[in-house]
Amino acid sequence: MPRTARSSTRPAVAGKIEKLVSEIVERAGKRKEPALDVPMRTLSNARYNKVKRIIEMGRATQNREFFKLGTAKSFMQTLLVASGCKRLIDEGKTASIRQVYYLLKHSIPGTREKTFNDQSESDPILEDLEVTIDALREELHVFADSKGAMVGEIILTDAGDTIDCTRLGTGGYAIPSIVEPEIIRFKKCNAKFVLHVEKGTVWRRFVEDRFWKSHRCIVTHGGGQPPRGVRRLLYRLHHELNLPVYVLLDNDPWGYYIYSVIKQGSINLAFESRRMAVPDAKFIGVRSGDFEKFHLSDDVKIAIDDKDIKRAKQILAYPWFEGKKEWKKEIDLMLRHGFKMEVESMMTKSISFVTESYVPHKLKHRDEWLD
Amino acid sequence: MPRTARSSTRPAVAGKIEKLVSEIVERAGKRKEPALDVPMRTLSNARYNKVKRIIEMGRATQNREFFKLGTAKSFMQTLLVASGCKRLIDEGKTASIRQVYYLLKHSIPGTREKTFNDQSESDPILEDLEVTIDALREELHVFADSKGAMVGEIILTDAGDTIDCTRLGTGGYAIPSIVEPEIIRFKKCNAKFVLHVEKGTVWRRFVEDRFWKSHRCIVTHGGGQPPRGVRRLLYRLHHELNLPVYVLLDNDPWGYYIYSVIKQGSINLAFESRRMAVPDAKFIGVRSGDFEKFHLSDDVKIAIDDKDIKRAKQILAYPWFEGKKEWKKEIDLMLRHGFKMEVESMMTKSISFVTESYVPHKLKHRDEWLD
Repeated sequence: MPRTARSSTRPAVAGKIEKLVSEIVERAGKRKEPALDVPMRTLSNARYNKVKRIIEMGRATQNREFFKLGTAKSFMQTLLVASGCKRLIDEGKTASIRQVYYLLKHSIPGTREKTFNDQSESDPILEDLEVTIDALREELHVFADSKGAMVGEIILTDAGDTIDCTRLGTGGYAIPSIVEPEIIRFKKCNAKFVLHVEKGTVWRRFVEDRFWKSHRCIVTHGGGQPPRGVRRLLYRLHHELNLPVYVLLDNDPWGYYIYSVIKQGSINLAFESRRMAVPDAKFIGVRSGDFEKFHLSDDVKIAIDDKDIKRAKQILAYPWFEGKKEWKKEIDLMLRHGFKMEVESMMTKSISFVTESYVPHKLKHRDEWLD
Repeated sequence: MPRTARSSTRPAVAGKIEKLVSEIVERAGKRKEPALDVPMRTLSNARYNKVKRIIEMGRATQNREFFKLGTAKSFMQTLLVASGCKRLIDEGKTASIRQVYYLLKHSIPGTREKTFNDQSESDPILEDLEVTIDALREELHVFADSKGAMVGEIILTDAGDTIDCTRLGTGGYAIPSIVEPEIIRFKKCNAKFVLHVEKGTVWRRFVEDRFWKSHRCIVTHGGGQPPRGVRRLLYRLHHELNLPVYVLLDNDPWGYYIYSVIKQGSINLAFESRRMAVPDAKFIGVRSGDFEKFHLSDDVKIAIDDKDIKRAKQILAYPWFEGKKEWKKEIDLMLRHGFKMEVESMMTKSISFVTESYVPHKLKHRDEWLD
């Protein structure tokens, strides 16, 4: 049996799939139409939970019946994806969403009809299954492409292998797409916090300067917008090890957005916020006021365009930015300045300014953070 | 001193920069115009060396003079980039190409002129410097974003840390952008060959099935078109450890192109082929004939379009495909079939068909490889 999948999740999620199917069989036995209720993954069914401070999915559902022309195909596809995931779980293997598509694609006997015509049909059905049985895609043994890396004061086991994240050279630990507890276990952690930076190029500066050692921390990056594996890992580091999560991003609307996804979750994946969002994450920079505070030169300025302005206003209008006066001031200042700044522009001061001066300053001055 | 940069390269490349500069100073001392000869990185100056079987840069150069209006700025920029790289080398640090841009951007005293207006000005100058002093970008301490990973029967040291690539869980070793011998050293290798696959999603199947263990090998991927770090690592594994390199790619023009870059190098980076190309690499699949050979179903077929046809014909016209009858037959068959296939489509047979049947078959039947 491959070492990547452990029997511990098997009963839980496999059981949910079995329950889903046996309910349909039961209905059929009572001569009722075989049908499924699938929660709706639409914008109108996503809402911000002010108490939990995360984006959640509402209760609206959509009925899929076997004997209705409009839903018969999606009913069949949902059960097919469920059977495919069950097969992956039973065999202790994982697959990409594209591989799931290939695994389940075939001609329906006696017809020229395909189960799926292309991957754009199987991807949403997989998300339907996730919400219907309340399981993460990763628990269904399906993964996305991975990006992002980690280095620092933590020892973990990955599929049984011990990984000491203080001894990984310059490459670091490549954060896999599936980081569920049955694969990744935290063994020993000396870190006091997690510093998450936007990109691999910035992260490398922190690795070279051994920032994680001098500040006793973990440093992660997500290759831009962090993929599910990175978000889930941040969630686990925060919730299981009580590590605060500090986020260092570019001073632009894209940076604001990445922060809001790490903190509250996204609208698209609203149903996963509660297993991925870190509402206590803090934004430590780059802030517009840093331009004056750190006497940066004009060389760091990147003029904003209409798209940036539009995006910034959209972000301010999100319910989860509502009432956050500091954020409103922050974004207004960026718009008034008329320029944005990247973390990498700290190089205009000196090669290691970001690790030796900027972040240490920010760690000391909590009043400069944004919530 | 950071552990990522060792003093061993310092004299070599730093010395080349010093030589470049002292020659200019010497010319000035003799009252000659300060000038530089920069090899031309154009298509017309790239050629295929049939003996070495790699793409090389020709001997054409371009003169950059300080006292000529048309070249004064690029002369200044070239020396500026040289001084920035010297500074990185001296401080034992590395930077991304974007960071180099920020590091060197400033106003020229007494003018409103900037040294670089944006990164599109500094990137080509950096490549100019590489060819002028005959040093890899990585030797100049400048890196690109990294992608790609490795797992298997090898133990290496990365910046002093020992990395056992048989014990890295599901994430594997993230291949860094800089893999020069002063950072990455091969300690012990039990592998008989390297299997390079196109994408991370395919690579993960080989990791889960522990293919590297049952076949005593190393398995790498390059996240699509392999970045410089991955190509350089394949080169080193092949040339220093005598490991054959077998390549598994999609059956489409993009796959053919990736293979040709791994094997002969690319036109854009012609000057680096001799430190990155692996002319003895073998293409083990996916081949068009595999459709019949492995009784694949129609579900694997992806119809080719005009772009695919055009690209396939371009590739056949490359001098390095000239006279390769087997490749001509191969590409002609794909065009005649009218469809392409992805490695991931092997899932239509079974989850582990690719690792348990397809690749083992290919490893046994060398007559099915393409050179």
